[in-house]
Amino acid sequence: MFLRPIKKYFLSFQSRNVSAKAIVFSNHGNPSQVLQLHNYNIETSPSKPILVKFLASPINPSDINQIEGVYPEKPYFTKDLGTDLPCSVAGNEGVVEIIENLNKNSEFKPGRRAIMKNPGFGTWRTHATANSNDLLFLDIDGISVIQAATLSVNPCTAYCLLKNFYKLKAGDYFIQNGANSHVGQAVIQLGRIWGLNSINIVRNRSNIDKLKTYLYDLGATEVITEVELGDKEFMKELIKKRCGESGISLGLNCVGGKSVLDLARYIKENGHIVTYGAMSKQPLLMSSGLLIFKNVHLHGFWVTKYNKTYPEERLKILNNIITYMKNKSFKDLLCDKVYLDKSMEDLTYMETFKNALENKEKKQVLVFN
Amino acid sequence: MFLRPIKKYFLSFQSRNVSAKAIVFSNHGNPSQVLQLHNYNIETSPSKPILVKFLASPINPSDINQIEGVYPEKPYFTKDLGTDLPCSVAGNEGVVEIIENLNKNSEFKPGRRAIMKNPGFGTWRTHATANSNDLLFLDIDGISVIQAATLSVNPCTAYCLLKNFYKLKAGDYFIQNGANSHVGQAVIQLGRIWGLNSINIVRNRSNIDKLKTYLYDLGATEVITEVELGDKEFMKELIKKRCGESGISLGLNCVGGKSVLDLARYIKENGHIVTYGAMSKQPLLMSSGLLIFKNVHLHGFWVTKYNKTYPEERLKILNNIITYMKNKSFKDLLCDKVYLDKSMEDLTYMETFKNALENKEKKQVLVFN
Repeated sequence: MFLRPIKKYFLSFQSRNVSAKAIVFSNHGNPSQVLQLHNYNIETSPSKPILVKFLASPINPSDINQIEGVYPEKPYFTKDLGTDLPCSVAGNEGVVEIIENLNKNSEFKPGRRAIMKNPGFGTWRTHATANSNDLLFLDIDGISVIQAATLSVNPCTAYCLLKNFYKLKAGDYFIQNGANSHVGQAVIQLGRIWGLNSINIVRNRSNIDKLKTYLYDLGATEVITEVELGDKEFMKELIKKRCGESGISLGLNCVGGKSVLDLARYIKENGHIVTYGAMSKQPLLMSSGLLIFKNVHLHGFWVTKYNKTYPEERLKILNNIITYMKNKSFKDLLCDKVYLDKSMEDLTYMETFKNALENKEKKQVLVFN
Repeated sequence: MFLRPIKKYFLSFQSRNVSAKAIVFSNHGNPSQVLQLHNYNIETSPSKPILVKFLASPINPSDINQIEGVYPEKPYFTKDLGTDLPCSVAGNEGVVEIIENLNKNSEFKPGRRAIMKNPGFGTWRTHATANSNDLLFLDIDGISVIQAATLSVNPCTAYCLLKNFYKLKAGDYFIQNGANSHVGQAVIQLGRIWGLNSINIVRNRSNIDKLKTYLYDLGATEVITEVELGDKEFMKELIKKRCGESGISLGLNCVGGKSVLDLARYIKENGHIVTYGAMSKQPLLMSSGLLIFKNVHLHGFWVTKYNKTYPEERLKILNNIITYMKNKSFKDLLCDKVYLDKSMEDLTYMETFKNALENKEKKQVLVFN
């Protein structure tokens, strides 16, 4: 009785009905098996007055975990998109362009870009309708689409890892494993920008020299393999040469298992180790002696919770990172762009997507054309 | 040129030369193999004007680790006791009675009792000379010799574990493994005194009911076995029944290995786990998810370092514990008294001592007669 006249009123301002594609799931499980392509039409409404077109969205490990059902933030299943079964659109991070805004007085005009304000919106899709609470408008016009699409999870995590647990001064050292992850790469760059030195651990591989060169170019002080980390003599020399008496007060861990125990040996008295991932899928191993006698502290970091708890701080962090990107001190992170063209046949579309899903070599970013 | 007249002056105040026995070691290794009995004579001197007789000294796990050479505080080897090789007297905790004090103006008169001010003095011996910096005089006349001998390590650790990491309010729950250790028993009692509730984990054993009864008598709220801890359904019921929504914010770990991972599951968001021992001799296992998504923090505690860093706080803590002992709210902890009689032949003396060393069933306290 109430909605209809308002809708009519808004529609008189030229609402658009667009055909959209989304990668959805109705059940938890192996992403390759449970994810499906859904075609549907959407149009703006008074409660969702903004029509957005997705430009790009990364495939993050946490997105995969969420589909598998092992992530603490659970997706919301609904029939809103016209599916037979309640479903959820996968993906949590992305950059959009505004196509239409029924609210003509809003400052969020067609043509402007925005990122997702919160996770859980569903970002692996071509279009969506939204309201202004779904979007975060930042001054992102000077940064690339890929940088904008991957801004809020990994660089923001990296920023907090270096800032929130130990007050490092210029010249100080930190150590991190999984240094070639997107967070790891962002950590190296922020470290360089802030005058910090980094010891970076990566797994050995056939093209290790290429990876080392890449990380040194980003600003790594040292890049070593997990095998070298496990070699006490090698590490003794390295620490002596690099940090001497001052030691290492901060360790960052996204691997778990034995890697963090090997890393922990080189954390000095009263130091801190922060875990933000578990790439090895192994429980973390730790030495009781390091906790007791060296007073090393272990923490975890979850950017989703941080962003919810400190939205103002998050905004400052994002703006700082954008500034670094604009002045070219923060470089693009290694990734594959996966072009999902709306004109593709459904089978080709899904095949292209699934190839990206299974490629663990590099960060995959979906680019919607 | 200078010392001799002073010594003479002091000697004129009746110095005594006594025959002493000490358990010493010259090399690190298996305590049963490297520890030896040394007989020697001592007398007071201007630099060590106080002659003390040891009343009792416990065998603590850290004493064993120190002899083995795996403890961070290294012993000081010297020929001061007249041994052929430089040696160190074992043991770090104990209670003494003053036999003589060359400094007649000192308030520390013969007949008074004292405990060791610092570890490293060497307490597994019948007599020693000391100066006032070696001793800590507390109002311990109203507590038993065993309580005084075991006051400064385990009850002090227990006190700090409950007070220094999380502000528990009356009615709150904490959880601990190794609950039948001396620290664990002290933790239960202090918890009861402060109105806290404890969930206590012990290893299963043939006489488990006897142990449970003992711990309930000390004030345990729940005593469960490691097997029960590993049973998720059992624990779910227990937590629901006991803590409900309020949950458990503090976990104490002296076992390590998988035990701490099992325990960690029941720590609530933003909670803390403190490690103060590693009885399983296994690296500690931890879930990355608990660190990341529940924001659980891991710390260690070492009473030796605490006492050095906060001597004033230590004194307050010891005095509070003594008050609890005097008003009978803190009961004697389970231990075996091992009588080492000076009149025993050397072989019998060492045999009695070595039997105590090898008895891991209960805390062993050497009593010097």
